[in-house]
Amino acid sequence: MPGNCFGRLFRICTFGESHGKGIGVVIDGVPPNVKLEESHIQKDLDRRRPGQSSVTTPRSESDRVKILSGILEGKTTGTSLTLFIPNRTGRPEEYEPFKNRFRPGHADYTYQKKYGIRDWRGSGRASGRETAARVAAGAVAKKVLAEESIRVTAYALEIGGVRAGKLDMAEVERNSVRSPDADAAEEMIARIEQVKEKEDSVGGLVETLVQGVPAGLGDPVFDKIDALLAHALMSIGAVKGLEIGKGFDSARMLGSQFNDSYFMEEGEVRTATNNAGGILGGISSGEDMLIRIAVRPPSSIGRSQQTVDMDGRECSIEVQGRHDPCIVPRIVPVVEAMVSVVILDCLLMCRAYKEWSER
Amino acid sequence: MPGNCFGRLFRICTFGESHGKGIGVVIDGVPPNVKLEESHIQKDLDRRRPGQSSVTTPRSESDRVKILSGILEGKTTGTSLTLFIPNRTGRPEEYEPFKNRFRPGHADYTYQKKYGIRDWRGSGRASGRETAARVAAGAVAKKVLAEESIRVTAYALEIGGVRAGKLDMAEVERNSVRSPDADAAEEMIARIEQVKEKEDSVGGLVETLVQGVPAGLGDPVFDKIDALLAHALMSIGAVKGLEIGKGFDSARMLGSQFNDSYFMEEGEVRTATNNAGGILGGISSGEDMLIRIAVRPPSSIGRSQQTVDMDGRECSIEVQGRHDPCIVPRIVPVVEAMVSVVILDCLLMCRAYKEWSER
Amino acid sequence: MPGNCFGRLFRICTFGESHGKGIGVVIDGVPPNVKLEESHIQKDLDRRRPGQSSVTTPRSESDRVKILSGILEGKTTGTSLTLFIPNRTGRPEEYEPFKNRFRPGHADYTYQKKYGIRDWRGSGRASGRETAARVAAGAVAKKVLAEESIRVTAYALEIGGVRAGKLDMAEVERNSVRSPDADAAEEMIARIEQVKEKEDSVGGLVETLVQGVPAGLGDPVFDKIDALLAHALMSIGAVKGLEIGKGFDSARMLGSQFNDSYFMEEGEVRTATNNAGGILGGISSGEDMLIRIAVRPPSSIGRSQQTVDMDGRECSIEVQGRHDPCIVPRIVPVVEAMVSVVILDCLLMCRAYKEWSER
Amino acid sequence: MPGNCFGRLFRICTFGESHGKGIGVVIDGVPPNVKLEESHIQKDLDRRRPGQSSVTTPRSESDRVKILSGILEGKTTGTSLTLFIPNRTGRPEEYEPFKNRFRPGHADYTYQKKYGIRDWRGSGRASGRETAARVAAGAVAKKVLAEESIRVTAYALEIGGVRAGKLDMAEVERNSVRSPDADAAEEMIARIEQVKEKEDSVGGLVETLVQGVPAGLGDPVFDKIDALLAHALMSIGAVKGLEIGKGFDSARMLGSQFNDSYFMEEGEVRTATNNAGGILGGISSGEDMLIRIAVRPPSSIGRSQQTVDMDGRECSIEVQGRHDPCIVPRIVPVVEAMVSVVILDCLLMCRAYKEWSER
Repeated sequence: MPGNCFGRLFRICTFGESHGKGIGVVIDGVPPNVKLEESHIQKDLDRRRPGQSSVTTPRSESDRVKILSGILEGKTTGTSLTLFIPNRTGRPEEYEPFKNRFRPGHADYTYQKKYGIRDWRGSGRASGRETAARVAAGAVAKKVLAEESIRVTAYALEIGGVRAGKLDMAEVERNSVRSPDADAAEEMIARIEQVKEKEDSVGGLVETLVQGVPAGLGDPVFDKIDALLAHALMSIGAVKGLEIGKGFDSARMLGSQFNDSYFMEEGEVRTATNNAGGILGGISSGEDMLIRIAVRPPSSIGRSQQTVDMDGRECSIEVQGRHDPCIVPRIVPVVEAMVSVVILDCLLMCRAYKEWSER
Repeated sequence: MPGNCFGRLFRICTFGESHGKGIGVVIDGVPPNVKLEESHIQKDLDRRRPGQSSVTTPRSESDRVKILSGILEGKTTGTSLTLFIPNRTGRPEEYEPFKNRFRPGHADYTYQKKYGIRDWRGSGRASGRETAARVAAGAVAKKVLAEESIRVTAYALEIGGVRAGKLDMAEVERNSVRSPDADAAEEMIARIEQVKEKEDSVGGLVETLVQGVPAGLGDPVFDKIDALLAHALMSIGAVKGLEIGKGFDSARMLGSQFNDSYFMEEGEVRTATNNAGGILGGISSGEDMLIRIAVRPPSSIGRSQQTVDMDGRECSIEVQGRHDPCIVPRIVPVVEAMVSVVILDCLLMCRAYKEWSER
Repeated sequence: MPGNCFGRLFRICTFGESHGKGIGVVIDGVPPNVKLEESHIQKDLDRRRPGQSSVTTPRSESDRVKILSGILEGKTTGTSLTLFIPNRTGRPEEYEPFKNRFRPGHADYTYQKKYGIRDWRGSGRASGRETAARVAAGAVAKKVLAEESIRVTAYALEIGGVRAGKLDMAEVERNSVRSPDADAAEEMIARIEQVKEKEDSVGGLVETLVQGVPAGLGDPVFDKIDALLAHALMSIGAVKGLEIGKGFDSARMLGSQFNDSYFMEEGEVRTATNNAGGILGGISSGEDMLIRIAVRPPSSIGRSQQTVDMDGRECSIEVQGRHDPCIVPRIVPVVEAMVSVVILDCLLMCRAYKEWSER
Repeated sequence: MPGNCFGRLFRICTFGESHGKGIGVVIDGVPPNVKLEESHIQKDLDRRRPGQSSVTTPRSESDRVKILSGILEGKTTGTSLTLFIPNRTGRPEEYEPFKNRFRPGHADYTYQKKYGIRDWRGSGRASGRETAARVAAGAVAKKVLAEESIRVTAYALEIGGVRAGKLDMAEVERNSVRSPDADAAEEMIARIEQVKEKEDSVGGLVETLVQGVPAGLGDPVFDKIDALLAHALMSIGAVKGLEIGKGFDSARMLGSQFNDSYFMEEGEVRTATNNAGGILGGISSGEDMLIRIAVRPPSSIGRSQQTVDMDGRECSIEVQGRHDPCIVPRIVPVVEAMVSVVILDCLLMCRAYKEWSER
């Protein structure tokens, strides 16, 4: 059943399985004349790839991207752009023990019910490995957005209950958990290692800051920019919640506290506070966008769990293998990618009507 | 810019403004041969309509729905079904004072930036009144789902910090705030009235329980059922956050706590807990679905606020008029509608491939 | 099953049946700030409406359009624009005799097979009356295109074998068959009246000339502008064929005859001939577009025909009532409407990427 | 600008250029549990590939397809299926002479105007080589349709004015022009060779017969099956016209001649004639579908032509290289592919609503 494509004008269509030949994406609707090299994409893939540090899975994939189409002499041609990342270290045999038993928390059971068949080799299409294609597509979107001075930055706000106190963007890429707080980062790492030792896993929060978005992006009624962002981010495997601006806290605020009052600054309309997170009525206001997501702990844990097999017999299972004890550090570039795809899609939509809007 | 349509197979396309001729929806993809009368739709519209009680806006709209097309002799024909709800008590003149000033929290400024024109008559298309069309469309979806024994029930979990302690579904429609806890309901009502007196407004949480969903609904990778639900619910005006199952709490759980272990019950695969909220890998598991959203306080408040006008001059504003001090009670049927639209859309998608899935 | 919407950015969604409450359209993606009044739309509806002359159906519908949403003070707001045309002279009872028998050439049998139910009142949704909504939507598109100096003109090239010899655009709206050749028009009218007397019907050819289209419209590979035009035009009830430029004749030409060679004219690239009909590789070249469609004779004829009834019994049928003996004159504005919708849709798409294309 | 995807449920998204790394397609919405091997796809690719005979281009591509995703143990998994055909004998240098000059009949000029950049290496994305991806995707659709006893057969009805007199389906694949008439085939071949000698090219007609389609496929109003077929077929590079059933001839028929009368045969509703080509009101009737397209002569000819260069100077051009003198024989499998994609898409759509249609 279709569902592997996302976007309206900047439209991505992904494919590939965890232990198949590779992971890829076709982008339909890339603006032409954008300078693009594999190295631009590789940079973000390297941030997502496994085996980066002690807190991520030991599976060591180089994740080298190849541009298969859509480029001429270092520039996009505007035709479909295809990126492919071959799998190098697939080990389907490691999953043989789970072929017949449903791993709790994973999509094994639901895929089996949905399709009557499932790729048991490391979750197949339902693997987190699928997100490599998102990161690759997002890197292309980011490249275009950068030329428009729009910056998308995500970071680990909280891991295993340890919260970043400082928000120092310069710090984010310096530590292995991608925390904007160096001290909290150390604690987060310690927390992950402790959990990993117990063959368990842990979750956290990822926050995304979007700077430089012009006012007017997002399309009412159903394609509000927050609705599109929610669609994009909730489609990432481990995400169980999402909030914009004050989010869940706004449910306990009064209107007089929540409303962001307007004032003028250098000829621009600004808001004194930004409780709305840069979005009003589903349309960007020009203020920074702020989005937070809740990431559940990874499903694969070495500890024994109760489950059932394909024949409906109860049994236990221990999911050994190359797994992430915490997915937060590696989900950061995935979140940036999906947010970038949405922002660019909305930007293109706005441009289509620009001549009339500016009358 | 397009954005007024939602859904893939059961596709709704809405129109209309708060103080224009009315609000309506065209549904493309209605199953044929479904018994449908205006009264089925009216029932849910009556739950959403203004002027129901002391805690909602005093604007008194009868919200009488008319079926304009798609029905023959009390049955859907499978062709586009159109529902129209004329506006009876539009009073655009009440909005004259705000014509030139941006109301904080509203979409006034962002619509102006987006389109270069905005319907200032009570927010126009950005008004909460737009949701009448969603409720009407949702009632059609609910009718079809009911025949499949799928039930969607939403309720006020929390208002102004007052939380329901009991979850008695039978209680929900008995009190004016739609709380499943009669005692909490009284407190919630008192809280709203207190806030209203101060010309302020207040937010809350709405929880939705979906029962009877078969396993297998939802389409990976981007059209996961949680992603579609997030898109649908975050597109409702006042919603600032969303979570599925344990949601944000899952960010602080261990994998061994979060994973729902499987067991067999009467030949069916079941989970011992339901932390995932009935969705695994974006596909329904057959367990109850549980979705919570955060609803911010309404933007229209009588208290004085700082703002700017169309000419970029700072000024103050007091948004008097017929407003809801809390939108939670009236958003409940809107949430049920959007969830129902998504579930039916996913159900139809599954049916398309049923013959192959069940091989 | 969905299918009542068309377009990507300028998206129309139609509804209504021949003998129901009326016919309408919601347009999602209208450019804002376009001056629009009901009279602009009425003008084209009057060209399509029944009862105009001796060669069309005697059903006399005034076809008065109402704008239900999307307009403020005479301008489009950019939100969904809804147009509604109430049915005034529906006479469902006239169709009682055919309720149980399939009229040859009509969609009676196929709708019954598809939906298991069909609106027997004058073909219901499958009636040519559905095209009133297309004309209404097309009038909005035309209004926008006119501001861009793009003109869409259709006319009767041939009726019942009588072909227009001259192509005098000024003549088209002066005769009741919309022929660009006054002499041929007389013959065409005579031909229709002769056929009508014998309780029969007749077909013809409609040609469309599109002037002022800039080079660059249309989107490879599948959304070539000729493919979109074909989709749009073949979706009109009676159309059985379509060709662009030299069309079917090109199948008998040599490459050296068919290829349009280039030359320069006032600094512009032009082609010496226009066998391609203004489209190369699915993209507009800036030359005039030329599109021809084949219109079959109307299905409703008074003469006795063999058919079967709902119980599978063979029987005869005589389709009396208010029918068009030839649909060509009234299909002309429908064709213009669909072509205009496609051109505007492609124009908006181009604008979205303009900044990058013009680098 | 997007346009590289086609279909609603069985959705194909193609990529690749003539002289880039290869050509491919991602199919989103493949039914699961369908047995599929590369050899099933290769069979049709071999019918399309260049270098098959004296009447096609001498470019010799083996066109070996690789399945990159979507398969497990010889069966489709229902997730995105990717097919890739590497280019082996790309010779971009052959196109250097045309880098700066617009080849008449080709998309050179229009791509340049559209994107501000164009892949000059053998037309890039606009090359007929793009259709390899269509054939690959179509082979998957055909595999599914075959299990439903639906057969799609295309053939050369006419080449260079030489028309097939007999329609012997068994003959089609026996001659190099794919004519159903062995005698006509010889003449056609002679005609092509004669034209080729003169460094010219020639067009023709391709007819498609679809057998075994159940009644009820196609979705009114805009997604009529003939409209979808027209979209699909007119999107093939060289197609300039399309007709269904009697097509253009119907414009000269009377209603009493054109209407197909019904009768009963073995409990089934049948039509005595099939002028409608198996489609009524845009929905399949269960009779054979008959579709004809007009194919213009290939644009690349060795003869000298007038053109202009990128700097707006008039000049002449001789397009030497590896070209087809007639594309008809190789377009046959492309047509079958596109028709198959549409039929399967419509079949899946019908299945989604089957339970309600059969009430």
